[in-house]
Amino acid sequence: MDSATTTSVEVSATAFLRRKEGTGAAAETNHAASNGNEVKQETFFRKYRHVAAVHYKARPSTLSHDTQTSPSFVGFRNLMVIVLVVGNLRLVIENMQKYGNLICLTCHDFRHKDVLLGLLLYVLVPCHLFIAYLLELVAAKQARISRSQSVAKGGSASPTKDQQASFQSTWESIRKAHFVNATVALAVNSWVVYFHIHHPLIGTITELHVIIVYMKVMSYALTNRDLRHAYLHPIKGELAAVPEIYASCPYPENITMGNLTYFWWAPTLIYQPVYPRTEKIRWIFVLKRLGETACLSVFIWFCSAQYAAPVLWNSLDKMHSLDLVSIVERLLKLSTISLVIWLAGFFALFQSSLNALAEIMRFGDRSFYDDWWNSAGLGEYWRLWNKPVYQFMKRHIFSPLVARGYKMTTASLIVFFASAVLHELLVGAPTKNFLGVAFMGMLIQIPLIWVTRPLEKMKGPSGKLIGNVIFWVSFTILGQPFAALVYFYAWQAKYGSVSRRMGINEPVMLT
Amino acid sequence: MDSATTTSVEVSATAFLRRKEGTGAAAETNHAASNGNEVKQETFFRKYRHVAAVHYKARPSTLSHDTQTSPSFVGFRNLMVIVLVVGNLRLVIENMQKYGNLICLTCHDFRHKDVLLGLLLYVLVPCHLFIAYLLELVAAKQARISRSQSVAKGGSASPTKDQQASFQSTWESIRKAHFVNATVALAVNSWVVYFHIHHPLIGTITELHVIIVYMKVMSYALTNRDLRHAYLHPIKGELAAVPEIYASCPYPENITMGNLTYFWWAPTLIYQPVYPRTEKIRWIFVLKRLGETACLSVFIWFCSAQYAAPVLWNSLDKMHSLDLVSIVERLLKLSTISLVIWLAGFFALFQSSLNALAEIMRFGDRSFYDDWWNSAGLGEYWRLWNKPVYQFMKRHIFSPLVARGYKMTTASLIVFFASAVLHELLVGAPTKNFLGVAFMGMLIQIPLIWVTRPLEKMKGPSGKLIGNVIFWVSFTILGQPFAALVYFYAWQAKYGSVSRRMGINEPVMLT
Repeated sequence: MDSATTTSVEVSATAFLRRKEGTGAAAETNHAASNGNEVKQETFFRKYRHVAAVHYKARPSTLSHDTQTSPSFVGFRNLMVIVLVVGNLRLVIENMQKYGNLICLTCHDFRHKDVLLGLLLYVLVPCHLFIAYLLELVAAKQARISRSQSVAKGGSASPTKDQQASFQSTWESIRKAHFVNATVALAVNSWVVYFHIHHPLIGTITELHVIIVYMKVMSYALTNRDLRHAYLHPIKGELAAVPEIYASCPYPENITMGNLTYFWWAPTLIYQPVYPRTEKIRWIFVLKRLGETACLSVFIWFCSAQYAAPVLWNSLDKMHSLDLVSIVERLLKLSTISLVIWLAGFFALFQSSLNALAEIMRFGDRSFYDDWWNSAGLGEYWRLWNKPVYQFMKRHIFSPLVARGYKMTTASLIVFFASAVLHELLVGAPTKNFLGVAFMGMLIQIPLIWVTRPLEKMKGPSGKLIGNVIFWVSFTILGQPFAALVYFYAWQAKYGSVSRRMGINEPVMLT
Repeated sequence: MDSATTTSVEVSATAFLRRKEGTGAAAETNHAASNGNEVKQETFFRKYRHVAAVHYKARPSTLSHDTQTSPSFVGFRNLMVIVLVVGNLRLVIENMQKYGNLICLTCHDFRHKDVLLGLLLYVLVPCHLFIAYLLELVAAKQARISRSQSVAKGGSASPTKDQQASFQSTWESIRKAHFVNATVALAVNSWVVYFHIHHPLIGTITELHVIIVYMKVMSYALTNRDLRHAYLHPIKGELAAVPEIYASCPYPENITMGNLTYFWWAPTLIYQPVYPRTEKIRWIFVLKRLGETACLSVFIWFCSAQYAAPVLWNSLDKMHSLDLVSIVERLLKLSTISLVIWLAGFFALFQSSLNALAEIMRFGDRSFYDDWWNSAGLGEYWRLWNKPVYQFMKRHIFSPLVARGYKMTTASLIVFFASAVLHELLVGAPTKNFLGVAFMGMLIQIPLIWVTRPLEKMKGPSGKLIGNVIFWVSFTILGQPFAALVYFYAWQAKYGSVSRRMGINEPVMLT
């Protein structure tokens, strides 16, 4: 049917044509042939097409089980992508016909008070880091003195009783001070966000900033405490416990303004006196990453305003009347767009922004995430998707607890509890609704992790596949849109007056 | 964060715990250690968690170009499948809420006249095969006589002049008779379908049957003509042209009722005196295939009635007002369901039904299709998806033309023209509208084949990928739904009265 095919039939046919033209090897063979033969050849080749045996051997169909080699299905993978694109293209048209253009640059009524408070907190919040620094400065001075005393006394390897005592007393007061500092940072700022910042977007950004600084303060204090202890107990074993990488900047020397400032801006929540660094800043790389961030932010804002907003608004009355089927329908409709926004947000924050920042800071360790999308279970996901937070929890909560003899399960429970509190704070404060949905959302991870762990361990792909599906469905398809729906509904119930575009951008972007 | 992780930190921690319990090799090493040492060990391990160097080496992010190993994205493939399922689940709910149940067993008003005519034609159409048989019987007798004469004359290898003449004259009349028989089969029956069978489904089935028988008659006549010629010219070269597989049933012996009856029911359009056969009938296999066919037919009917019908109905007014954007939106919405129906239909017909039939007929060659879904172009697709028709076109039109010295492109053009005519007949006659859309749809394949051929030839996957996408989009996403839409619209314009369920089942199933 298509001339590209070359079967015996055609080969002989074309061979015949060649022979007719009297060219090629074939011509040589019968150059002596009489004209009559030529004609016979022709009739022969012309006439005998219709007898060709097409069905010459028994063979099974490609898709039947009798076949030895299973065919490739890569074509169907392509089809899936196409159908996804087409399906959503249709929804785009539908949306356009239904709502027209919902993008509106002037509709955002950022109140002056919100903007001013936001800027003020943006400046004030980091101050807590510097308070922590001053505390450490005092502690360091104190440590230097007691160390020099011990050296003066002949530098006995093990510290004397009164050194121990002085260290203890200092540490007691330093610890209290750190505790007060960190707690104030979190409590006061969250209070301001909850009661005085109306716009959820500004609120969220501020709250996020507060939580980051809070964690940095904690890490700074705890790390320096251990470093100081090693410094004051210069016993072989204990100094060995301090990683080699810190050698270039041993304990008291790291308590400097410069060192802290670097930690302040470094894309990590974990304090180390020394970090792996890169030689130079590749400004092209930085520009590319910033460009990505900008484009993705616009994309997210567009998606939220044009696609997520109507879905959320149409779901309000269904939520109100608790029409379950409709709520599920809304949830599923929301899931696609919230998934898109989530993926874009993840890439914008963890790939583009953090890499840009890391490049500027010449921060070497860029593994802010790993291939969480392949997670065979929830546990794997939480270990891979947000490594800065995971590493903080592991270094400052999980491992110390285990080292103190707690069971690993207990340690995990405590970690997830802490994480749940912070999540609820992050979502609840800006939306003025501590509903506990984010909180429960985190706690529910523990049973899910237990359920999916066997699948992670399972040999062969099937277990991993099931685990991966459970992860996607529970997390992206149901978890996020549900949370978005609930907080949006609660927000609307409280501030129904707020502009449609304002209201929705934020819970969806939180998903 | 999750206790499954085991890093140096935890290892040392747990090692410490073990040591404390005084079990394992660790215990031996410090069994002599004083209690004070024990305590120091403990404080050591307990205190130094917070200094662990988490950022110990420079490494790029998983998704940045700096990484050597590109990560696996199998998780996203799973996500695609999930999103597809979820997206369509949502449409199912939406459809349910909008239309409720549209399935109705009693609504099909098959008119008595349609059913009777359908059954009558079902019995009459095959008669044309038997007319062809009778013609061949005459020709065979004639051939036997002239052959025996030549043998009587001393069996000279080459036939005499008057043998030639008698063969020619007989063949002239036989050919005329065959031509009349085949033409009548096609023309008269199509005429009946067009003017007297109202129901499109019955009409389509009948028309399909007619076309199949028409092709079988052609193949039977042409093949036997060549066989007879070889029989009458027993020259070495010419007999060699007859495939070995036919040896078990040389020419005149194959002109029997049994042989024809087998060809009548065999799942092929190509006549061969002998086919590859299987030893026995696996009845379990047959039952399974028939079960698949039944289930898929119900599935197709359900999809057509519940999902395709409303889309087609809602598109009517848009087609009428030529609202382009809306038509495209309808087209895209229709594409998904028409794709599903198409795939189900393909499997039901080419895999399940034909395999069941082949098994019952002990027909060996089951390659009714190949992996067309991976086609890197339209040409490949047309070669692979429907091999019975492709083989017929190739054996009885393409190859003979090429053998007669036509260019391959010309031969392809002629093949596609013939195919276009048959397609238009198959769609136009039952829907009472020869719109030429199916006709043009086939002819448009030629430029598409020319466009995609370079992609098929291209090395590396990218070319094949593009070709495959072009194939899916042009064929499944646009081509089929468009044809369905047009013929349905034309049908409704002509017989607006027809029941909603009747009207739509058919153009969609034709896609």
